Amino acid sequence: MAKELKNLTKRSENYSQWYNELVVKADLAEQSAVRGCMVIKPYGYAIWEKMQRTLDAMFKETGVQNAYFPLLIPKSYLCREAEHVEGFAKECAVVTHYRLKNDPEGNGVVVDPEARLEEELIVRPTSETIIWGTYKNWIHSYRDLPLLINQWANVMRWEMRTRMFLRTAEFLWQEGHTAHATAKEAEDRTVQMINVYADFARKYMALPVVVGVKSETERFAGALNTYTIEAMMQDGKALQSGTSHFLGQNFAKAFDVTFINKENQAEYVWASSWGVSTRLMGALIMAHSDDNGLVLPPHLAPIQVVIVPIYKNDEQLAAISEKIQPVINELKSLGISVKYDDADNRRPGFKFADYELKGVPVRLAVGARDLENGTVELMRRDTLEKETLPIEGIAAHINSLLEEIQQNIYDKALARQKEMTYEVNSYDEFKEKIEAGGFMLCHWDGTPETEARIKEETKATIRCIPLDGDTTPGVCMVTGKPSKQRVVIARSY
Amino acid sequence: MAKELKNLTKRSENYSQWYNELVVKADLAEQSAVRGCMVIKPYGYAIWEKMQRTLDAMFKETGVQNAYFPLLIPKSYLCREAEHVEGFAKECAVVTHYRLKNDPEGNGVVVDPEARLEEELIVRPTSETIIWGTYKNWIHSYRDLPLLINQWANVMRWEMRTRMFLRTAEFLWQEGHTAHATAKEAEDRTVQMINVYADFARKYMALPVVVGVKSETERFAGALNTYTIEAMMQDGKALQSGTSHFLGQNFAKAFDVTFINKENQAEYVWASSWGVSTRLMGALIMAHSDDNGLVLPPHLAPIQVVIVPIYKNDEQLAAISEKIQPVINELKSLGISVKYDDADNRRPGFKFADYELKGVPVRLAVGARDLENGTVELMRRDTLEKETLPIEGIAAHINSLLEEIQQNIYDKALARQKEMTYEVNSYDEFKEKIEAGGFMLCHWDGTPETEARIKEETKATIRCIPLDGDTTPGVCMVTGKPSKQRVVIARSY
Repeated sequence: MAKELKNLTKRSENYSQWYNELVVKADLAEQSAVRGCMVIKPYGYAIWEKMQRTLDAMFKETGVQNAYFPLLIPKSYLCREAEHVEGFAKECAVVTHYRLKNDPEGNGVVVDPEARLEEELIVRPTSETIIWGTYKNWIHSYRDLPLLINQWANVMRWEMRTRMFLRTAEFLWQEGHTAHATAKEAEDRTVQMINVYADFARKYMALPVVVGVKSETERFAGALNTYTIEAMMQDGKALQSGTSHFLGQNFAKAFDVTFINKENQAEYVWASSWGVSTRLMGALIMAHSDDNGLVLPPHLAPIQVVIVPIYKNDEQLAAISEKIQPVINELKSLGISVKYDDADNRRPGFKFADYELKGVPVRLAVGARDLENGTVELMRRDTLEKETLPIEGIAAHINSLLEEIQQNIYDKALARQKEMTYEVNSYDEFKEKIEAGGFMLCHWDGTPETEARIKEETKATIRCIPLDGDTTPGVCMVTGKPSKQRVVIARSY
Repeated sequence: MAKELKNLTKRSENYSQWYNELVVKADLAEQSAVRGCMVIKPYGYAIWEKMQRTLDAMFKETGVQNAYFPLLIPKSYLCREAEHVEGFAKECAVVTHYRLKNDPEGNGVVVDPEARLEEELIVRPTSETIIWGTYKNWIHSYRDLPLLINQWANVMRWEMRTRMFLRTAEFLWQEGHTAHATAKEAEDRTVQMINVYADFARKYMALPVVVGVKSETERFAGALNTYTIEAMMQDGKALQSGTSHFLGQNFAKAFDVTFINKENQAEYVWASSWGVSTRLMGALIMAHSDDNGLVLPPHLAPIQVVIVPIYKNDEQLAAISEKIQPVINELKSLGISVKYDDADNRRPGFKFADYELKGVPVRLAVGARDLENGTVELMRRDTLEKETLPIEGIAAHINSLLEEIQQNIYDKALARQKEMTYEVNSYDEFKEKIEAGGFMLCHWDGTPETEARIKEETKATIRCIPLDGDTTPGVCMVTGKPSKQRVVIARSY
């Protein structure tokens, strides 16, 4: 069975297959009976919960409050904003009836044709429309602003090609929807939230990200400006990991949401919206894991330390348990989540492989000799290095080691990102380099035509115009026309 | 505006209208554009979040893990368990298509007839079917058991008559689904979880509940036994507040979920499921609130203490703020959530009325004279009693006062429940008494026929056969046939 656990495709053989297998073998998620929808298993959900709790606290720190809006959106609402409906109508689940009935021909139950809805309802692909339809009643005066609301919810987009966590028909996410008195305030909030996402990615996910602005083509349907965080996976592909949209007055106009300003005049309200989803799970898995399985940053690991006793009989186990209990207590008092696995139906070797696969950051093994010597064997998952250490003071050592591991995982990802980021100056060089993956910093003339040509010819897209990038002007690598600054181009998930 | 806040219908005039108005005026929730679906506003959601966090920790304490299963359920899954489909098919939202398209006649977008699903999908009314369809892959041996899983999710039941929180088409809930090797273990878990709910209701919601078993007629569709907690509202009606179902092997058989037992034989798995929903919000509001607005038990109040400075100018405000800041700090260090409302666009009288309406358990007011005297004025929401107290030691006083308020709210509800619970011995007496509300403890012959007759003639239903009730036998108040014990009969929400 330990062998079976290890039987994971290598990244170098087939990166995509490695990912798909890892998601299942590490007990994170699996395909469900419903096309494109996954089941998130307890171990995967525990990681998502840690992400949620952390993000939720970060949002609240900035004054955001949670609320909940309906799952179903009237079709007419979706249609109010022209670009928005264009962007979402082609991939939505439509509720047309509200009842089943016994089949008159005796074959189970069928849709009751008499229970047809007057107006079809759409399972929300995102909630701008229902929320702005509601804000109309909440906003009257500048005193009602800003309105800073978030919801944790499930959404549905009928994607044709799906992959667990990265692109599923139903996914879990949060969507923030803010309302402001001025354009500047709304855009400031848009930027503030993309920075919250970047902070979260770096500090908790150990994921270096490039923060930037999307090209017009890649904007959210209905936005004036979309900010993004783009992370690099181990194959050099980009993964869009979170977006924040400046919506201008588009939704306020579509739903007639105005406020009386301090000068006593009616104005349309300004908006932002921003979201991250279970896609972050995909980023986390893909960015750090190795051929032995998951590598989880300690800040998001459901189990941070596992302790495996190695014993031949009940007496030995009792002696080990007695010796190790104070260590467990001390770890817990330091706020470290620890699991003591003394189950007798799995051998230590199996346990080792399983916890490696599941990415537990620190493993302690304690055997009879350790008892004699007052030692434990410690393995860190990020480097797979083992050392034998005195049991005395081990909890404090682990406490700082977890931070060291967190930093090391980040540093490794950052080093890879730097190594695989290239300044490219000609289209020929670009076409060659893009095959091996990586972020290409290129001059682009800013036109959708050139963008479309690059995408068609190389399958690469403009990931973003980086906010802190080099702003030296140059000439477009494709057309030779002037370019204001280099943009990030890459193939992506 | 303060007048408008107070303009709440009195309970004695129209209890039902009082409730509906209170939900809206206290900013808890409002009707949405989608029939039967509500918007849960930030203040209401903050209470729900406190409920969720507490319950989630209580579940985990018993070994339960969270997971997530798909929103949409294939129609054929729903039909596998005969009673289950009978119970839910008549009130479900059906997804029949996965795409909209531009109307060829130019009227916005329409359902694309070419995007019809081969098999219709049902928005989950509850998840037994999809979960047991999944468990089939997770359970093979007795070593895989027990499986203790919960999910926090939205569900949908197309109810014809809806009321905010009490009965909505979409609602938020948790549903636990456990799998066991023996009938006893599954039924023990069923009972354990109804007791968790009862504990939560009593300790956090300050809500006394009767724990009991449902009659066969009132069982969950597909269960062998349903346990319930029944709470009494101020009008004497019962509110079913949480249920826990012993499902036997029904779903295991429907989805062919077997395990190899220790004797190496295949057996069907035993199951429980249990849930509470945003309906608890309705119970909380209805049970404790008064004609001035919400009365929130401190353990669930998003704001436990509000401090309102009363000042004539900026100088006075600064002096009050300086004096009160150490109190705020001390309250926070005690883990008490406190709001200091120094907003200058609302008068103190308005603020007082608003925080009363919102049920904030403790209000402090600090004016110029208090500054001189080193005092504060404290009002407790449950009794509306005011006293002037020294500012010295006020935080410690509030800390114990919050517990006193929590207990007082519970005691009050319990006293009412006792007062309005009657032993009734004849059907005539029953018919008379039921008009004024309350729980009637009556002998019943145990037949569905008698149960149906009571319901038809009096609109009252058997709420439960109480677990800790008097088990002295007697004769049915309707038919005179033998009865094993008194049951609780009441009108209900």
